[in-house]
Amino acid sequence: MKKGKILSGMRPTGALHLGNYFGALENWVKLQNDYDCYFFVADWHALTTGYENTDDIKNNINNLVIDFLSAGLDPEKCSIFLQSSVVEHAELHLLFSMVTPLPWLTRCPTYKDQLAQMKDKNITTYGFLGYPCLQAADILIYKANFVPVGEDQLPHLELTREIARRFNFLYREVFPEPQPLLTKAKVLPGLDGRKMSKSYNNTIALSDSPEDIKKKVMTMITDPQRIKKDDPGHPDVCAVYAFHKVFNEDEVPEIEENCKGGKIGCVQCKRNLAEKMNAYMTPIYERRQDILSKPAYIKEVVMKGNENARKIARSTMEDVRNALKIDWE
Amino acid sequence: MKKGKILSGMRPTGALHLGNYFGALENWVKLQNDYDCYFFVADWHALTTGYENTDDIKNNINNLVIDFLSAGLDPEKCSIFLQSSVVEHAELHLLFSMVTPLPWLTRCPTYKDQLAQMKDKNITTYGFLGYPCLQAADILIYKANFVPVGEDQLPHLELTREIARRFNFLYREVFPEPQPLLTKAKVLPGLDGRKMSKSYNNTIALSDSPEDIKKKVMTMITDPQRIKKDDPGHPDVCAVYAFHKVFNEDEVPEIEENCKGGKIGCVQCKRNLAEKMNAYMTPIYERRQDILSKPAYIKEVVMKGNENARKIARSTMEDVRNALKIDWE
Repeated sequence: MKKGKILSGMRPTGALHLGNYFGALENWVKLQNDYDCYFFVADWHALTTGYENTDDIKNNINNLVIDFLSAGLDPEKCSIFLQSSVVEHAELHLLFSMVTPLPWLTRCPTYKDQLAQMKDKNITTYGFLGYPCLQAADILIYKANFVPVGEDQLPHLELTREIARRFNFLYREVFPEPQPLLTKAKVLPGLDGRKMSKSYNNTIALSDSPEDIKKKVMTMITDPQRIKKDDPGHPDVCAVYAFHKVFNEDEVPEIEENCKGGKIGCVQCKRNLAEKMNAYMTPIYERRQDILSKPAYIKEVVMKGNENARKIARSTMEDVRNALKIDWE
Repeated sequence: MKKGKILSGMRPTGALHLGNYFGALENWVKLQNDYDCYFFVADWHALTTGYENTDDIKNNINNLVIDFLSAGLDPEKCSIFLQSSVVEHAELHLLFSMVTPLPWLTRCPTYKDQLAQMKDKNITTYGFLGYPCLQAADILIYKANFVPVGEDQLPHLELTREIARRFNFLYREVFPEPQPLLTKAKVLPGLDGRKMSKSYNNTIALSDSPEDIKKKVMTMITDPQRIKKDDPGHPDVCAVYAFHKVFNEDEVPEIEENCKGGKIGCVQCKRNLAEKMNAYMTPIYERRQDILSKPAYIKEVVMKGNENARKIARSTMEDVRNALKIDWE
């Protein structure tokens, strides 16, 4: 007996890196064992900021599904589907738009932040303003009980809950209020110690080969004050140390001591990390090679996920139309 | 060979009156002979202003279809369908939302007007702001060549054309730019000489019986300065005279002369009008009685219209997904 329904999605905007993986996907892989999980590729959401160039979107969709499967999402345990394949999301989004007060969207804390951050893109569009409303439809159409979120996404989930409450109040009780499933994501910095981000070119992709990983680890930036091997190191400013905390938890106290005491060199420390990382990453890499060898399988997984998703979405939309009294047919 | 595709719709907000009929529907009945026509019941649009109470919407949808058919729309000549039955409108609306700059909507001349007018309703919603975007989807999904509009609706149609141009520019040429089919609507005042409007309680409904029409005509307000029959009348301020211009064009010069010369009494003039109106309205009334006697027919008409509409809408959405490169399936 599973503990409830979970929904979460990711935008297909390029190869996932380890920051994305430890930020969400690693957790999804665990959740699929205990909850009834629906994970989706949010291609419509990708359009909110990427509508001006969609050349890569089909590839990105494919790659995201491959990332999902390589990471260990198991189509026997969860449904993996494509947002744009379940047109009911668009219908519910339209109906929610009718009951969503404009200030709920314009005052959304992330809205102005993102407008300010993405100065290179023209995102002052109607759709970008409304994407929390689309998100509400994504979640509520499955009557999800839980949504795995980081703290920064809590305001969005709160908006979803408010839209659910408003709908239930105006018409009748159709939607449960989804609860946040707060996850303490493991934080992995980039190779240079800054936030891991494609725009900083400091990432390790989930698809990197063991060789790639080893090479990248050897280029990582450590404590800049440590010139010689027996200089005392400062692990807290060292990206390699941050990685050890994720991939090599057991040895962390020893590494800290050796580093601070100048008893271990950075090169040796990196070699150790690369080994531990590849112990973790190689199964992911091997699963990927297996999946890549059977392209029909990817389609099959998504088609099956789409069917599972549509079944619930259609049933919810019947409730919704009935509550709104527009079930004329 | 028909001259092109036409799309138009009406909101199901209650019984149509003669102002609505002469404002649009009378023209639709003519257009169905020359164009490939798609006429729809805009139930989603009705929600933009009526979402707070949808108790009557199902009845209103039914009645609007009955009004359409009574007025002479012929399901053999045109398609009559229900907006919410063609979910593709919602999908295209969502995709258009991504490419529609917010200022195109906030600066729409009718937007602020309507916000100011409807002070009794809470319509500062996301959906109300975006309804021109939904309208664009309604029109463009059929690749309509013409849209019958009054002058006041030209800005909305221009917005639809702008969205079509923007989509075509960003992706590829998918949508023709629909042209306005400007119609000089016959203007019929209300029974009291003001604009005919349900809120003034001065309407004649398209569904009124010949007896109702006669009774209402006899209560119409004429020239208030004319006390006695042989006082000279002022036809230009007389509602009855305005009605004669629509229903009794041939006799208008004679009536004007007799009224100005005090040669005809208002009661006699009204009786004459009632007769002429009923000559026009009785076939509409009789068609209605016939339709009301076969409720299954109404459903049949709409189901067939829905099928016709869906066929085109689905084909357009294939083009759209393909142009956007999100045709993953």
